[in-house]
Amino acid sequence: MIFSQTVEYALRAVVLLADVQREAKTTQQIATMARIPPDYLSKILQNLRRAEIVSSRRGVNGGFVLQRPASEITLLEVVNAIDPIERIRTCPLKLKSHGSNLCELHRRLDQSIASVERTLATGTIAELLTTPSPSHPLLERTK
Amino acid sequence: MIFSQTVEYALRAVVLLADVQREAKTTQQIATMARIPPDYLSKILQNLRRAEIVSSRRGVNGGFVLQRPASEITLLEVVNAIDPIERIRTCPLKLKSHGSNLCELHRRLDQSIASVERTLATGTIAELLTTPSPSHPLLERTK
Repeated sequence: MIFSQTVEYALRAVVLLADVQREAKTTQQIATMARIPPDYLSKILQNLRRAEIVSSRRGVNGGFVLQRPASEITLLEVVNAIDPIERIRTCPLKLKSHGSNLCELHRRLDQSIASVERTLATGTIAELLTTPSPSHPLLERTK
Repeated sequence: MIFSQTVEYALRAVVLLADVQREAKTTQQIATMARIPPDYLSKILQNLRRAEIVSSRRGVNGGFVLQRPASEITLLEVVNAIDPIERIRTCPLKLKSHGSNLCELHRRLDQSIASVERTLATGTIAELLTTPSPSHPLLERTK
């Protein structure tokens, strides 16, 4: 599996908070609206807060909000807050003569990882909501 | 992590068997030569056998060999034998109106997965050993 289920949930949570604009949402609301098991979500929101992607507001209308505009948050940041993409920089077998001169096996694996990294780094959360598509993230189509 | 540690080990085992040509290697030999924890390796070799990538020979010079020429085994096959790459074909939230019309979030994630799949499908195990490189897979450089 290229993206863990936790990464999928985190992206849903961030996309939801982007979509509701500046309205704070509680863990329970996010869980329901983005179909995320509540038990998973608390931990995910903690990690997103640590990565300064979301922040929480106390009080009557408290809950979670995006800490920055969705146009400034890339998919890569969200993925890396949860399950960091690790490039292969040096020989995983720790062969001394290889070091950072990867053999062809690890060079190709790293190439694949780099392509994922590139795709995720060039997309922002805002784009996910504004790119024309018959299917809006997280929502059933209404006629 | 894009590729699990188990995938990394499986690729090493297959690359090793390709490199020693038709010589059968025991689990213990593969573990030592490819630096794979022996406890992991038995399970990995079972999965590779099930995927018809390796086969085992009984007898005095018994052990594991590649079941097909290394030029006919892609990296994707090895990865899929261990930890299958799953594309996103339909809405992970099971939204009825989305179905196979993915929203932009899932379309982009699937694009990333597709790019990994493509890179791995176009490389064969044989190429990993024949592409000119200062670092030969699994081996320290000798002067």
